[in-house]
Amino acid sequence: MPNTIYDQDLDRNDANHVPLSPLSFLARTAAVYPDQVALIHGKRRLSWGEVERRCRRLASALTARGIGRGDTVAVLAPNVPAMFEAHFGVPITGAVLNAINTRLDAAAIGFILDHGEARMLMVDPELADVARDAVARCERSAEIVVVDIADPTLPDATAIGSIEYEALLEEGDAGYAWALPADEWDAISLNYTSGTTGDPKGVVYHHRGAYLNAVANAMAWEMGQHPIYLWTLPLFHCNGWCFPWTLAAVAGTSVCLRAVREEPIFEALAKEGVTHFCGAPIVLNTLANAPASARRPLAHNVKVMTAGAAPPASVIQKMEAMGFSVTHVYGLTETYGPCTLCAPQPDWQDLDADALARIKSRQGVPYHMLAGLMVADPETLEPVARDGVAMGEVFMRGNNVMKGYLKNPASTAKAFAGGWFHSGDLAVWHPDGYIQIRDRSKDIIISGGENISSIEVEDILYRHPAVLEAAVVAVSDPKWGETPCAVLTLSEGAEASAEEIINWCKENMARFKVPRHVIFAPLPKTSTGKIQKFVLRQQAEDSINGASSG
Amino acid sequence: MPNTIYDQDLDRNDANHVPLSPLSFLARTAAVYPDQVALIHGKRRLSWGEVERRCRRLASALTARGIGRGDTVAVLAPNVPAMFEAHFGVPITGAVLNAINTRLDAAAIGFILDHGEARMLMVDPELADVARDAVARCERSAEIVVVDIADPTLPDATAIGSIEYEALLEEGDAGYAWALPADEWDAISLNYTSGTTGDPKGVVYHHRGAYLNAVANAMAWEMGQHPIYLWTLPLFHCNGWCFPWTLAAVAGTSVCLRAVREEPIFEALAKEGVTHFCGAPIVLNTLANAPASARRPLAHNVKVMTAGAAPPASVIQKMEAMGFSVTHVYGLTETYGPCTLCAPQPDWQDLDADALARIKSRQGVPYHMLAGLMVADPETLEPVARDGVAMGEVFMRGNNVMKGYLKNPASTAKAFAGGWFHSGDLAVWHPDGYIQIRDRSKDIIISGGENISSIEVEDILYRHPAVLEAAVVAVSDPKWGETPCAVLTLSEGAEASAEEIINWCKENMARFKVPRHVIFAPLPKTSTGKIQKFVLRQQAEDSINGASSG
Repeated sequence: MPNTIYDQDLDRNDANHVPLSPLSFLARTAAVYPDQVALIHGKRRLSWGEVERRCRRLASALTARGIGRGDTVAVLAPNVPAMFEAHFGVPITGAVLNAINTRLDAAAIGFILDHGEARMLMVDPELADVARDAVARCERSAEIVVVDIADPTLPDATAIGSIEYEALLEEGDAGYAWALPADEWDAISLNYTSGTTGDPKGVVYHHRGAYLNAVANAMAWEMGQHPIYLWTLPLFHCNGWCFPWTLAAVAGTSVCLRAVREEPIFEALAKEGVTHFCGAPIVLNTLANAPASARRPLAHNVKVMTAGAAPPASVIQKMEAMGFSVTHVYGLTETYGPCTLCAPQPDWQDLDADALARIKSRQGVPYHMLAGLMVADPETLEPVARDGVAMGEVFMRGNNVMKGYLKNPASTAKAFAGGWFHSGDLAVWHPDGYIQIRDRSKDIIISGGENISSIEVEDILYRHPAVLEAAVVAVSDPKWGETPCAVLTLSEGAEASAEEIINWCKENMARFKVPRHVIFAPLPKTSTGKIQKFVLRQQAEDSINGASSG
Repeated sequence: MPNTIYDQDLDRNDANHVPLSPLSFLARTAAVYPDQVALIHGKRRLSWGEVERRCRRLASALTARGIGRGDTVAVLAPNVPAMFEAHFGVPITGAVLNAINTRLDAAAIGFILDHGEARMLMVDPELADVARDAVARCERSAEIVVVDIADPTLPDATAIGSIEYEALLEEGDAGYAWALPADEWDAISLNYTSGTTGDPKGVVYHHRGAYLNAVANAMAWEMGQHPIYLWTLPLFHCNGWCFPWTLAAVAGTSVCLRAVREEPIFEALAKEGVTHFCGAPIVLNTLANAPASARRPLAHNVKVMTAGAAPPASVIQKMEAMGFSVTHVYGLTETYGPCTLCAPQPDWQDLDADALARIKSRQGVPYHMLAGLMVADPETLEPVARDGVAMGEVFMRGNNVMKGYLKNPASTAKAFAGGWFHSGDLAVWHPDGYIQIRDRSKDIIISGGENISSIEVEDILYRHPAVLEAAVVAVSDPKWGETPCAVLTLSEGAEASAEEIINWCKENMARFKVPRHVIFAPLPKTSTGKIQKFVLRQQAEDSINGASSG
């Protein structure tokens, strides 16, 4: 590059270049709003000043135990204060936070502890048994310091570790001096994908991306300062979509939540004045279909951000009718959680509730800080027509795309082939530039050579008044190759026959898309509420074509 | 640094690392909100889609004329659409925007054109005469392409250039493909300081800093999406405090304004539904003291951001009483405009109007994206006590601190000595962490060995009911070394004698701070409404001690 007058004597120095890191938000908020409530857990309240001192103590104790840059600290816990604090205290040392999915079995957790080379595992009492088994299976078990996170609300809990979390904090110094990482490209966290096929992959986030997506959340949601945020979304899921860091940036209050059920959610909304929460569509569905006994009236409008699967339009509609404002976002573990947003347009206010809910169920446009988004041919990377019909794969590019997969250069290279991140999701691109996911690549149903979007069929099933939950998967068919099979649960007290469901579909979709089979059965789900299509596909196959064909 | 598992096979690539640049906000907003109004200028309305195409045309035309990375394009214009567009169209090419203060004389403009090595100068018709003189004085005049920015509202304007702005756009291609700069450290703009002593210094901004401060503005002001922003603040002042880029990020509407007078401001507030504007305290003062005939009732709360000098508490109070919400920020050209914020605290709502206005007149706490702020000893960089009394210099550190001064390594090194930016402003640090500016280093009055803050004395003068404007400067005194002299203008129809003013001061401040001299005279101001203390100091000195002592 030619040397211009602007390239001379204008270098970086300590005064004008500081690494981007969400840890800077903790420092600022603790200094500016030391007395504001940062965390509510039952009767316990911790201010931002207290949280910052506790994070310093944690970092100091970890440092004293030899944990530092590039070391992995794992946590297996629901949304409790220690889990939130670990999002700051661990990276302050330069170490990398590995928040593990609490629904995994001991074998999967053991794999993660080994693969991620965890030096420490912090465990919630409810997960002590599986954690003990997981560590016992580890090749590296002797190298892992296990820390129990005691919880006064669980008095008879099992302790399996060598030290309790509060005692660990006591080892540390609240005056511990810390600095931002030398390089904003340094890893901040490690999140394993759910691994529907093969071993889970370890997605690595860096400080720069965590900082930027934390801010992008605040912008996408127009959060302002001091939101009261309910932790319905697991913190182990993409680091709670980067919201711990967002809440530090906007000096918000986190309301912790052990159990994502309708009663505690409605109670927290009423009691703590919650203004915002996130969750998979299943959480929305739970609230929208909650029995009257569990419901409480909302004192004010509550903002809900949802992602993880396309929320059925009918669920959005029900939530809005209850006084929630639903913002639909979309992303993957590899994109730090949300990276697109169904940004509302001014003229949408003229739409009726049904049309509005449908338009809001699209995945939308890039987040403020995503640099590139396209729907394109998976091989040529040629963008598809923006006609709402042509299907292609979703590709992203930006600072909120992962560093890569840990110790997996082959998968990393494949994911980034051609200079774009390959999401594996199939979508159409509408003329207004909004994308709409049609399926995961592997969930698409190909029947008689025609692609059928399982999501499109599900959306219509959800609109049937008796249907509570719906999933559509492919089953093999001697004539068509594959054919759609609907698996349903019905609302309490509702009734519907398979024939009635099929007729409903015939009235509402092209004939080739109509499910040939309907099964009434509970839907297997991941810890984050995603329906496990790969499990369901096998179950449906066994049920319809017999176990031998599976 | 030791090589950890997180340093292996996790490198930057086109998919996961994109330079930070505010140009990305233009691309996003034009794609997501193509029909939203971006610019209003009189009867003219331009959508974000149109603005983006016009910026592409401008970039394309500049590129075709050989202007590219590291070249300087100067603009001399009030807040008109071309000035706004230049903030995008110029840096798209890799060139650097040099927005020049419109109040400067031909000699100063000529100096800037030479020092900044401008390849092009775009000129508003109202500034054609001074621009012609400035170019004529330039050593490099033959190398400068002069572009006239025609304005239909000024039909008889003089043209001095070789091409008109719209014709220049016609030379370009609206489909011109552009990319973000290869390096976010690349320069985006050049802003000359007002240069109270010696030649002005050219402050260089980079894409990274412009991006981050643009976002920080939105966070500090909780702007949300689609604000309607009135351009009372000159765009040549720190690039309008980075607000062109903020407005691109939040898809806002800019209402252009040629003349910062009370009638057009009140008219725009009423007619265009303005939600936000910025301005020096003098703008607030103008509105707060506007005659009833010029005023219009506000249809809704309007947010006002002010900086540039400490706004007198009484002005804040008057504005709030009129329905404006005043946010006080502080910064310098070297910090991309605002870098601190008088962030409101929840318990301030219990304060009475007077106490609230006083607490809001402090300069406050770091912006979300300023990494470090301190009040410290100018020599040792040792922070002063946070007692609201001890005075020190304000120091900043962060990504919103300039690259440095163009072609001035000695001044750059001095400004960054010790790894902090030396602001030259003197402040106290309150126990709550809020800073309060007491003076520019050179404006402090040292009388009998005691420091007197001119701002503190002015604040009390402003509270006198007859006083419209007040400035306090040092004049030499045989006994005390220096002594304070107050220069005042009175509100229309108001009367007050020097003796009355001095008595008012005696009742409200320590005796040694009371001005010994009071002069009633108009106050010399910069283009941005800052009172020119260096001019006033000379005038006061001449008036009191005679011209010979100056």
